[in-house]
Amino acid sequence: MTNKELFENKDELMNKEIVIKGWIRNHRKQKEFGFIDFSDGTCFKHVQVVYDEKLNNFSDVQKMHVGCAIEVIGNVVKSVNPKQDFEVSATSITLLGDCPEDYPIQPKKHSREFLREQAYLRPRTNLFQAVFRVRSVASFAIHKYFQERGYVYFHAPLITASDCEGAGEMFHVTCFDLENVPKKDGAVDYEKDMFACPASLTVSGQLEAESFALAYGKTYTFGPTFRAENSNTRVHANEFWMVEPEIAFCDLKGDMEIMEDMLKNVVHYVLDNCKDEMEFLDKFVENGLIEKLTKLVSSKFNRITHKECIDILQKANIKFEFEPKQGEDIAKEHEKYITEYFDGPVFITDWPKDIKAFYMKQNPDGETVAAVDLEVPGAGEIMGGSQREEDYEKLVARMDELGMEKDTLDWYINLRKFGGCVHSGFGMGFERLLIYLTGIDNIRDVIPYPRTPGNCEF
Amino acid sequence: MTNKELFENKDELMNKEIVIKGWIRNHRKQKEFGFIDFSDGTCFKHVQVVYDEKLNNFSDVQKMHVGCAIEVIGNVVKSVNPKQDFEVSATSITLLGDCPEDYPIQPKKHSREFLREQAYLRPRTNLFQAVFRVRSVASFAIHKYFQERGYVYFHAPLITASDCEGAGEMFHVTCFDLENVPKKDGAVDYEKDMFACPASLTVSGQLEAESFALAYGKTYTFGPTFRAENSNTRVHANEFWMVEPEIAFCDLKGDMEIMEDMLKNVVHYVLDNCKDEMEFLDKFVENGLIEKLTKLVSSKFNRITHKECIDILQKANIKFEFEPKQGEDIAKEHEKYITEYFDGPVFITDWPKDIKAFYMKQNPDGETVAAVDLEVPGAGEIMGGSQREEDYEKLVARMDELGMEKDTLDWYINLRKFGGCVHSGFGMGFERLLIYLTGIDNIRDVIPYPRTPGNCEF
Repeated sequence: MTNKELFENKDELMNKEIVIKGWIRNHRKQKEFGFIDFSDGTCFKHVQVVYDEKLNNFSDVQKMHVGCAIEVIGNVVKSVNPKQDFEVSATSITLLGDCPEDYPIQPKKHSREFLREQAYLRPRTNLFQAVFRVRSVASFAIHKYFQERGYVYFHAPLITASDCEGAGEMFHVTCFDLENVPKKDGAVDYEKDMFACPASLTVSGQLEAESFALAYGKTYTFGPTFRAENSNTRVHANEFWMVEPEIAFCDLKGDMEIMEDMLKNVVHYVLDNCKDEMEFLDKFVENGLIEKLTKLVSSKFNRITHKECIDILQKANIKFEFEPKQGEDIAKEHEKYITEYFDGPVFITDWPKDIKAFYMKQNPDGETVAAVDLEVPGAGEIMGGSQREEDYEKLVARMDELGMEKDTLDWYINLRKFGGCVHSGFGMGFERLLIYLTGIDNIRDVIPYPRTPGNCEF
Repeated sequence: MTNKELFENKDELMNKEIVIKGWIRNHRKQKEFGFIDFSDGTCFKHVQVVYDEKLNNFSDVQKMHVGCAIEVIGNVVKSVNPKQDFEVSATSITLLGDCPEDYPIQPKKHSREFLREQAYLRPRTNLFQAVFRVRSVASFAIHKYFQERGYVYFHAPLITASDCEGAGEMFHVTCFDLENVPKKDGAVDYEKDMFACPASLTVSGQLEAESFALAYGKTYTFGPTFRAENSNTRVHANEFWMVEPEIAFCDLKGDMEIMEDMLKNVVHYVLDNCKDEMEFLDKFVENGLIEKLTKLVSSKFNRITHKECIDILQKANIKFEFEPKQGEDIAKEHEKYITEYFDGPVFITDWPKDIKAFYMKQNPDGETVAAVDLEVPGAGEIMGGSQREEDYEKLVARMDELGMEKDTLDWYINLRKFGGCVHSGFGMGFERLLIYLTGIDNIRDVIPYPRTPGNCEF
């Protein structure tokens, strides 16, 4: 029986015998009895196991350290501790897997930096037990949301010969022995590599997802993406997961409706399905977390243009570190101000084209594109989307203007030729959502085994 | 309104006006009227749109090619064709996105080889529309199965410095300019690379998943994995998706129960939720497909040891190309024979240790390991699993025996020291499942954008 089943059926199990297997998270010993804080990891709550010297291996049990795997046979009984619904009075405790006294995860507060070094053990702590279960449940909430609405889940290729954003920060993928890269006429002989061309790890599945949107109407990706950025910040990782929905016959307005609906839905699902975890995070990581998220679910999302946003910022009676300017990007401090100004989430639309990607729909003003960023209180930008340029000529002209290489993207351009239509999509960095959902402020602590510059352990 | 909604509510919509947007899949023109085979991709079935010369743009509509995106306003009416529940009698047809006459996807039979070259357009064909929807629905079935049973979804790292199988076929990941790899004392200066060490793309998330099993009890991965094999077969790709569940306090017997239950559950879910797609695949790809799968769901999975398997093969009154031998691997022809012999799925357990991975639990006989392969009729091996060696000393001894480098795997070995326990898991190549589910015989045709030697397009 799992701890989860035990908690769910505690009333029926009262005074019945059960068998449970799991780990000692804490062990308080008295001369004639002892308490084991027991967890099998199937739910956030721990089970209190009590035993006394009637156990025939009492002295051995008293020697069992934190971290040991054990099997407990015992009876579910009312607890003398009013905070607990029940406890398990052990009739037998068997050691299944020993653990030495110098086990790194002791029942005390460890720093997150220390726990990162013990990444393979940290899911055994309350904090990471909560965080990675939220990660799992939020993943499912996303799949459930899209699948129930008829979206086709699209597995974007990770190894790619094209470069979505036109940016250069991609990891190379090769079979070559780096000690001895084959050359021909002085240049790398890519003909000899696995794909007979230079290959990289994708930064986005969006372009390929568009081909699915134009076949299935609605599609979404949910998979890993990579950035070869040498950024040691709290929000950058070299490997992270993205959700990228793409919808045919949908304009920017429709796109925003989906963004809003999806976010509210996922947040609601996590609040509903991770009650214990969220209460823990609210108490120990971000006070007011549950209130913040509950408020989001019931709030009206505001909609302003980038121009209106800059106007508001410029009129603000506040000295910003970066002066807000028309035609330019906004900074973290501006995002913060604007969500406080509206006291809620804000969609900012119609961004200057020069700070946005080539595939975004050019507005009639010639200066802006039909792009949108969603800013939420307490986190700033949480996702971004756009209507895609469906006009073949305009797309090609923009790519030429930016000096982009069109050869590897001819298929993408052709999507505009073969029954192209108005379509839109957005991208959500999954870890950015998790930071918002958990209150954890470092991306390294919402990824099981984070990859950041200099870190590729485990 | 989507086609899916239209089919689901056809009775209530009868004689009502609707607006639909999608693509022309076929267009039959008569002098005074025309028929458009219309699809918006939201369901497998197409909608028949009929129009006549009362349309004020009748002559323009008649010129619309296959592939065009259109908007149709019309009334849902009874069809004269008894095979159709309804048709849409158009009062207005508007061109949304043009398509030239030389559009590659015409309403005729295209070879799969040709369609691979048009991978960005092939989901618009009936065959691939079916295959990739099955891929999406099967993905969700897998998530749903594990989430409903309390498994924590684990995102394994893809960039890794360790090598799960001890095999060498991994892609290198680097930020180095391959034209000019930095060297120090004649060797590659990995200190200068992003992770300050040699990095590769993972071949399996299992080892890391074990750390989650020992924290959460039950976990599963579902993500991409990579093999740098130069294999041009119908079942090998360089990039594919794997499902890798891992369960604590579970032995090989329990592992097999989960493998059987999960497979039946996923197959059942796909049969239930892709009826039209599966009927199409049954009719045009593999006759008897639905019967094969239905039979699997209700069949008893047989269990034999590898030794018993070889005994049966050796006694078989048949001349195999490869002679079955005790202590050796079995070939495709043997897999086929054994599933026919039992007329159903067969678990083969307790394999010779020398042909299996280092982490598998060593049986007391000193010769075999607690490994299992599941063979299914018509496909052979569909998944493989094992109980993991939980004994620290035995694991280390086996790694030494195999000459394995233990430094990057010290954390994995330590999982045996810190409350290690009996645990098991298995791996299922997702594309292998899809080949089985769809009857498609080439892995290139169940991956949206396959990566195989020489192919990295799109």
